[in-house]
Amino acid sequence: MSELRQDPTTREWVIVATERARRPDKFAKDAHIQESQPAYDPACPFCQGNESMAPLEVLRYPDEKGTGWLVRVVSNKFPALSPEGSTSRRLEDSFFRKMDGVGVHEVIIESPAHNECIAHMRDSQVERILHAYRARFNVLRQNPILKHITIFKNHGEAAGTSLSHPHSQLIATPIPSPEMRRKRETAAAYENDMGSCLYCDLLRIELAERKRIVEVSDDFVVFHPYASRSPFETWIVPRLHQPSFSRMSDDKIAPLASVLRKTLGSLYEALHNPDFNYVIHTAPTDEEDLYYDWHIRIIPRLTTIAGFEMGSGTYITTALPEQSAAFMRKIVTGSH
Amino acid sequence: MSELRQDPTTREWVIVATERARRPDKFAKDAHIQESQPAYDPACPFCQGNESMAPLEVLRYPDEKGTGWLVRVVSNKFPALSPEGSTSRRLEDSFFRKMDGVGVHEVIIESPAHNECIAHMRDSQVERILHAYRARFNVLRQNPILKHITIFKNHGEAAGTSLSHPHSQLIATPIPSPEMRRKRETAAAYENDMGSCLYCDLLRIELAERKRIVEVSDDFVVFHPYASRSPFETWIVPRLHQPSFSRMSDDKIAPLASVLRKTLGSLYEALHNPDFNYVIHTAPTDEEDLYYDWHIRIIPRLTTIAGFEMGSGTYITTALPEQSAAFMRKIVTGSH
Repeated sequence: MSELRQDPTTREWVIVATERARRPDKFAKDAHIQESQPAYDPACPFCQGNESMAPLEVLRYPDEKGTGWLVRVVSNKFPALSPEGSTSRRLEDSFFRKMDGVGVHEVIIESPAHNECIAHMRDSQVERILHAYRARFNVLRQNPILKHITIFKNHGEAAGTSLSHPHSQLIATPIPSPEMRRKRETAAAYENDMGSCLYCDLLRIELAERKRIVEVSDDFVVFHPYASRSPFETWIVPRLHQPSFSRMSDDKIAPLASVLRKTLGSLYEALHNPDFNYVIHTAPTDEEDLYYDWHIRIIPRLTTIAGFEMGSGTYITTALPEQSAAFMRKIVTGSH
Repeated sequence: MSELRQDPTTREWVIVATERARRPDKFAKDAHIQESQPAYDPACPFCQGNESMAPLEVLRYPDEKGTGWLVRVVSNKFPALSPEGSTSRRLEDSFFRKMDGVGVHEVIIESPAHNECIAHMRDSQVERILHAYRARFNVLRQNPILKHITIFKNHGEAAGTSLSHPHSQLIATPIPSPEMRRKRETAAAYENDMGSCLYCDLLRIELAERKRIVEVSDDFVVFHPYASRSPFETWIVPRLHQPSFSRMSDDKIAPLASVLRKTLGSLYEALHNPDFNYVIHTAPTDEEDLYYDWHIRIIPRLTTIAGFEMGSGTYITTALPEQSAAFMRKIVTGSH
C-alpha cells in the first residue's frame, strides 16, 4: 500500500507510491553514456580563451601561472533580474502588484575546460567553486535590497540547461522565496512548540535511525529525506547549527567539497550520469538568526513533474528513501 | 527591464524576464508534427476491444448501438492511492508523521480511438468527457475521507505521460493540496479586507482591461494570467461565482466543452501540438462555500522547470501574458 508522508519542514504531504515503485537500480539510464565532449569548444562563451564572449567578469581565481584561470564568475548574458531599478511596489490596473525586476543573476564557471564535471573533478577544484559561491554570496548579501540568494546548478537537458560547459548560477532576489516563507513559518512554529531548531532535531533523528543516511563525515551528513519529493532526492546538511551559507567557515570548505564531489560521483555511477539540479537552501540575508540550517539539495531528474504535481503541489515519488539510501550507501562504500 | 509580478491568488512573485523573452510566435515547435498514430493499437489498454487489459471500470457512456462505448472511466492500474486503509496519523521514528495512502486514482479514457485529441474532437465528445469528470467528482465527494479531488491531463512526454491514448486522470486525496491551502489563505484574507471574492474581482478586472483576454463567451472567460508562471499559461474561468466544479450545472457543460475544445485547438495550431497539462482547480470537497471560483488551468510545457524554480518556488517566465494573449486572440479569431 502507498503511504502519505509529511515533510516536517513544510508540513506538506508527499505520496510515496509503492504500487508503482521501482527498485533503486531501475532508475539508471539504460546505457552508461559517457560524455564525449572536447576540452575546448570554440563556440562556448565559458571556455578558456573565449572570455570576450561572456559578459562582465566579477570574480576570477587565476591559475598557477597567473595567465589563465581556474574558476570565473560572470554576469548572466540574459539576466532574469538586473541591479538597476526600484523595489517600490506599484499597482497595475488598480489591482495587480508589481515592481522592477531588481536583482542579480550571475554564472559561476566551474572550470576552464568544456568537458569537466564535479563528479570527476579533483577536490581542490570543487573547493574553489565553493569559495566562489561563498565569496559572491558575501558580497551580495551586503546589498540591503537583496533579500534572498539562491545558488543552483542545472546539469543536463531535463534539468533545464542549454550550455554543457560546467557552470552554476546565482540569483539574488529582492524578496524571500515562497519556499523559504513556508519553511520559515514551519520552523518558527516548531521552535515555539519545542524550543529547538527543527533542522538540528531532524538531523539528530536521521543520525540515530541511520536508515536514510548515505554518508556521515565529521562535518556533514548526506541522507535521503523522509518525505522525498522525487526518487534519489539527496540532502547534504552541516552538523553544526548554521542558518546561512554565508557563515560557513574556511575550515569547512574542504570537507564540503569532498562530500559534494563524492555524492555527485556516486550518483553519476549509480544512475549513469543523470540529469540533476542542486540548490543551496539558506536563510534570507536579513534573517540569518532564523531557526534554520542551510543545506544542499540534489534532485536527480528521473521523473517528470506532471499535471497533478503542478496543480496540487503534492508530489508523488516512486522510490522509498530508505531503499534508495541503502542502495547509495553500497555505492559510496564500494568507491572508497 | 524585467518585472516582478505578484500572483494575487497566492501572493507569490513571478519573474517576467523580458531580457530573455521570446516573441510569442517563437514558442512553437520547429515542425508542425502531426501525430500519425493508428486508430487502434493492439497493445493499448485504453483502446476499444482491449477492455480486459484495463482494471475495473467505474463508469461507461455507451455508443449509439449500445455495444461499444464513447467514454470510459477505469481504476488506475498502478494507483498512487487506493481506497482501503486509515487516515489516522502515525508517528515514525517518534518524529515523522505518516498515514496510509488512502484515496482514489482513476483514468478517464476520453475516446475509444487511439489517435484522437480534444483539440480536434467534436464538441459532443468533449461534453461527454466533462460529464464523466463531474459524475466521478460527485460520487467521490460523498466519501468524507476524500478532502480534495484533482482532475488533470498530461499530454505528451514533456507533460509526463507515457500512454498516447487520449486520457485524463482523477486523484482524490485525504488532505487538501498545499496549493489549495495557500490559495485558501489568500482568498480568506482578501475577503476579510474587501468583503468580496478574489476570483470574481480578478475576473472583473480582466474583463475591464481586456489586454490578457483570449476569448469571452456568455459563460466562460479565457485569459493569460497577470503573473503567469510559464509562457502561454491559460485559465478558463466561469463567469458565475462557483467555488466547486461539482456544482457546475448541466446547462454549462456544452458551453465549457466548446470553449475548452476551442482553446486547446488554438494552442495546437499556434504552438504546433505542444505538450501540455491541464488541471481543474476547485475548492476542497468539504469547503464548497469558500470564496473561490473553480477554473481550468492549461500549462503548455514549453520550458523546463530548473533548479531555481525547484529550490525557491519562484518562477521565471519568458513571455509577457499581454503579448501571448494578443497572439492567441488572433489565432482564435482566425479559426472562427
